[in-house]
Amino acid sequence: MDELHERVGRSFAAQGLMQTLGARLARVAAGEVEIEMPFGAALSQQHGYAHAGSVTSIVDSACGYAALTRAPAGSEVVTVEFKVNFLRPAIGRRFLAVGRVVNAGRTMAVCTGEVRAFVGEGEDYKVVALMQATMAFVQS
Amino acid sequence: MDELHERVGRSFAAQGLMQTLGARLARVAAGEVEIEMPFGAALSQQHGYAHAGSVTSIVDSACGYAALTRAPAGSEVVTVEFKVNFLRPAIGRRFLAVGRVVNAGRTMAVCTGEVRAFVGEGEDYKVVALMQATMAFVQS
Amino acid sequence: MDELHERVGRSFAAQGLMQTLGARLARVAAGEVEIEMPFGAALSQQHGYAHAGSVTSIVDSACGYAALTRAPAGSEVVTVEFKVNFLRPAIGRRFLAVGRVVNAGRTMAVCTGEVRAFVGEGEDYKVVALMQATMAFVQS
Amino acid sequence: MDELHERVGRSFAAQGLMQTLGARLARVAAGEVEIEMPFGAALSQQHGYAHAGSVTSIVDSACGYAALTRAPAGSEVVTVEFKVNFLRPAIGRRFLAVGRVVNAGRTMAVCTGEVRAFVGEGEDYKVVALMQATMAFVQS
Repeated sequence: MDELHERVGRSFAAQGLMQTLGARLARVAAGEVEIEMPFGAALSQQHGYAHAGSVTSIVDSACGYAALTRAPAGSEVVTVEFKVNFLRPAIGRRFLAVGRVVNAGRTMAVCTGEVRAFVGEGEDYKVVALMQATMAFVQS
Repeated sequence: MDELHERVGRSFAAQGLMQTLGARLARVAAGEVEIEMPFGAALSQQHGYAHAGSVTSIVDSACGYAALTRAPAGSEVVTVEFKVNFLRPAIGRRFLAVGRVVNAGRTMAVCTGEVRAFVGEGEDYKVVALMQATMAFVQS
Repeated sequence: MDELHERVGRSFAAQGLMQTLGARLARVAAGEVEIEMPFGAALSQQHGYAHAGSVTSIVDSACGYAALTRAPAGSEVVTVEFKVNFLRPAIGRRFLAVGRVVNAGRTMAVCTGEVRAFVGEGEDYKVVALMQATMAFVQS
Repeated sequence: MDELHERVGRSFAAQGLMQTLGARLARVAAGEVEIEMPFGAALSQQHGYAHAGSVTSIVDSACGYAALTRAPAGSEVVTVEFKVNFLRPAIGRRFLAVGRVVNAGRTMAVCTGEVRAFVGEGEDYKVVALMQATMAFVQS
């Protein structure tokens, strides 16, 4: 495990909510992070699909950690704001949130993210949510 | 319990995520709904504060249910999109999400929401998150 | 004209776009600024109503200047991002954008804004647009 | 000029604001539209750069027209809402807004857009703004 993955992995392990949602860190690269979450009834809205809040939680963390891979040494990342469009009902056996840095400055990063829903066993997916987020770098 | 509260309460009880987060329906009025969530480590981000995803989940539900109180008979509400600003670290013993309808048309409602953090035992709070959301009415 | 109004007014006068749109500074108070724009065909979209861009331009400036009234001495304001909901067609003889600071920190302010459309001669209006914005304070 | 370009071009020509801003339709393809705007002092904010409102106006139109290329026959497009991040000062000799449809349903489309700033004579550009928008299809 390289340094980038370790930095992100240590912080991810400390996020109680990610454990509560059953999410795990799937991939860490410079400027791009993926988080996976198997579906379960504990994540649902009233029709039994994944709640917008479940979906948003993993793509917020994915965008935040993507930003962390581009943060100045010794900095942490906090979410300033995000906006999410929900493209279709979040139906799937598992979800993968992909967060990417579009632009990183000295004090902030702008990220885009998407959440992919995998219905079957294969690699076919549909994008169920689209995020555009602002992350701030703060001295830790 | 009046009809409005019953309609919202039935749907709320079916949201697995709300139970997972320990949230409960606190108040239902025409065009305004409140959801309460005691803080716990299961909701945290890496510093032990409430995760942006926890906070967003309850204010999304609060805005969605506020819209439901204004929905045409026989309609359900789905979240089209939302945007959330995080004003300060979500530190508190408990959180209260307040969702309000600003404008309801035939097919959509625009809502604003806020999440209040109560640190002590009293009624003093700080607003930690601000939402602006679009909800759609769909035939159920 | 007090110091606040002067600070905002000087900057407003330097915004070429505000002149192009025929907008004028209507009110400056601590944490709240209003900008007025009479309607004209030069501001229209394809149906002859005010274009979302015209409406957004004045409420962005209103929010930015509201933030400026709360900025540290010697700071300027830049728009980090905003989100706007358009509640109904922007039909009116004149429009008034109202920008308000919800929360101001050391480096950023979160603002909300609305654009009011006045159809007749009187003071009755309808809100046509709702903004939630993040403004940054930068050393000038 | 094909039918798609004609449909969009006719509507664009009726947008008074696009003429006021000196914008022109640069490219129309299925699901993607580009609008160009040479910089001028009439578009500026207080430092002489392009105002966030100028930049937003062209990328809103680009996203709206991208949606129109995917709209059901006989439908018009209205902007439900958008969110824009401003990545850097909008400095350039000319700007190109690119709007793309990410997902189109029966009643709505979700689009992403960017505004590119060209400083020199060549084709090098920097992205100055990023949009995520919801467009509605309405019967005309």
